[in-house]
Amino acid sequence: MHRQTIRTSTHNYDVTVGKGLLSEFVNYLPKHYQQVFIITDTIVQPLYAEALRKSLETKETKVAISVVPAGERSKNIDQYYQLLTDAIQHNLDRSSLIVALGGGMVGDLAGFVASTYMRGIDYVQVPTTILAHDSSVGGKVAINHPEGKNLIGHFYPPRAVVYDVETLDTLPDHEKRSGYAEVVKHGLISCDSFFRDVLTVDLTTSLHHELIVSHLQNGIQVKANIVEQDERESNIRKFLNFGHTLGHAIESELGYGQITHGEAVAIGMLFAIRVSEQENQVTLPYDELYQWLETNHYPLTLPDMDVNTLIQRMKKDKKSSNAVVQMVLLEEVGRPVTKNISDDQLSTYLMNFLRELGLT
Amino acid sequence: MHRQTIRTSTHNYDVTVGKGLLSEFVNYLPKHYQQVFIITDTIVQPLYAEALRKSLETKETKVAISVVPAGERSKNIDQYYQLLTDAIQHNLDRSSLIVALGGGMVGDLAGFVASTYMRGIDYVQVPTTILAHDSSVGGKVAINHPEGKNLIGHFYPPRAVVYDVETLDTLPDHEKRSGYAEVVKHGLISCDSFFRDVLTVDLTTSLHHELIVSHLQNGIQVKANIVEQDERESNIRKFLNFGHTLGHAIESELGYGQITHGEAVAIGMLFAIRVSEQENQVTLPYDELYQWLETNHYPLTLPDMDVNTLIQRMKKDKKSSNAVVQMVLLEEVGRPVTKNISDDQLSTYLMNFLRELGLT
Repeated sequence: MHRQTIRTSTHNYDVTVGKGLLSEFVNYLPKHYQQVFIITDTIVQPLYAEALRKSLETKETKVAISVVPAGERSKNIDQYYQLLTDAIQHNLDRSSLIVALGGGMVGDLAGFVASTYMRGIDYVQVPTTILAHDSSVGGKVAINHPEGKNLIGHFYPPRAVVYDVETLDTLPDHEKRSGYAEVVKHGLISCDSFFRDVLTVDLTTSLHHELIVSHLQNGIQVKANIVEQDERESNIRKFLNFGHTLGHAIESELGYGQITHGEAVAIGMLFAIRVSEQENQVTLPYDELYQWLETNHYPLTLPDMDVNTLIQRMKKDKKSSNAVVQMVLLEEVGRPVTKNISDDQLSTYLMNFLRELGLT
Repeated sequence: MHRQTIRTSTHNYDVTVGKGLLSEFVNYLPKHYQQVFIITDTIVQPLYAEALRKSLETKETKVAISVVPAGERSKNIDQYYQLLTDAIQHNLDRSSLIVALGGGMVGDLAGFVASTYMRGIDYVQVPTTILAHDSSVGGKVAINHPEGKNLIGHFYPPRAVVYDVETLDTLPDHEKRSGYAEVVKHGLISCDSFFRDVLTVDLTTSLHHELIVSHLQNGIQVKANIVEQDERESNIRKFLNFGHTLGHAIESELGYGQITHGEAVAIGMLFAIRVSEQENQVTLPYDELYQWLETNHYPLTLPDMDVNTLIQRMKKDKKSSNAVVQMVLLEEVGRPVTKNISDDQLSTYLMNFLRELGLT
């Protein structure tokens, strides 16, 4: 079991990573709650929701559960409003707790519900995917708009993150790939040796718990270091968007759910590396990353996409400022920088990259 | 012109009260913005929106306007989502500004849009009602749920409040009454002489600008002092809810828009005074307040209402904790306290009060 404390401008919270934490969940809560509202999805609910309910429910604590359809599409305004209505019907008040049991989608959605219910109540993240090692730390909560991912949301840190790695055993391969893309990203923006260590993982066989815990700890630490220094994303927090400018545009253009978040980010990282090499006149481990992605069955071809449409998508993305696309680039592994790229230049880079990648 | 600075945990902002501020609006903004999105309503739009647009629009600043139907009913999830969509279509990015031009409804709604658009962008309050002297300070932003007022929202302070009292000249009488109820409240919870001074106002004739400016300044100061000390409503901020426990229940039971907010709070204050007298064994200026309210044509009778339904409404209200109704009471004028009132006791108080008030 590994525990680290994250500092935010409003409060501190603990992130605990280990095996078998769900059965003793109540020990990881910051205080006693009379009303707990578990929000989970249709995949996670049959696996862990009742166990979690049992470990919480006492004479003094009532527990309610709402289940949303699995998948990014549930991060929409209607689902959000339905959960607020559920919260009211379960009589949640300002001193109640929301538990987000699931992957990043559930965390973002349940966190946004918590952030706006009665102007904000406590919530705890219980990630059940590798990808959620990223989203569960940092306090970003959001839903999607048809025009862009996470366009509606807030910064609202949880009161605790309780990460039981046993819940990762049943993850399907595409979820492993999606999650590990963010681990790779944390390697690329922080430290060459961590990056090289991540590339030793073989996602096509069953995962070694020890290696996962080590990678998750390291990944969380990279993210935590950055968000602690820059809670509002005005500066270095942008580094966490490495690979996301194109990644989000691809997700958004294909339609959420057609490719996993991490798989889209993987392609986005390859693009960001190629742009970095040209903008910064350096050589970066494009080939090593490409080979690892290929070995681990990441989708590395895309349907024919219009370059201008992709650029428009990038501009709609919240990371762009005043309609100029800002990208996170690398000077070397572990040294990220941000740079505004003109539309013309971006168009050229994109055309070359898509040609290099090859089209389906 | 009067200016005071409000301190919050995230930033400070200026509240400026005076005549003719709209024509020089740009001088009161904290910085330059390239994209400004004015949100207003169907009553205010024909009066002030174009003038405000003209004072803002330059080669470097684009201005867009969205107009929502006047009335509390616009504080709903659909209108909120439509404004987010408008913001996207107007290409607002993280460095854009939203201007809330209107009364408390517009301020709450536009502020909530600003608080959740791309995880929060700047907004400025431009109140055009007396009531908004209250809501424009303190950073509460929200929309309503059919089950309760302001159940969905956030704490999100504006970057400035620009209060042009000339916009108050055209207010209809019921809006004057609604606004002055909150001024009375600020008197009751802060200082006997301010309270007595407020009761010198005659709302049935045209308002004296100087007296208004003085009352608004004082009211804003009372509110600002409290919210600065207690941004998150855990403690003394609750005093601002004086009269609101029953007030909100009445509004909610009658249906929003059937009685103005302040008119409902006026009845709520009478109730809170009666409960205070009995709980605290004191005599309070019930009769003076009742007479002033009557002279100024406040509605002081109610349709027949079920006491238990009202109590249930009070419990749904966000100010109650763990399903016990907490009321703000007075030990004397200027000395508010909070107290939990049991259902039985509340029921008795309510029955006696409704009987005393008389039914329509």
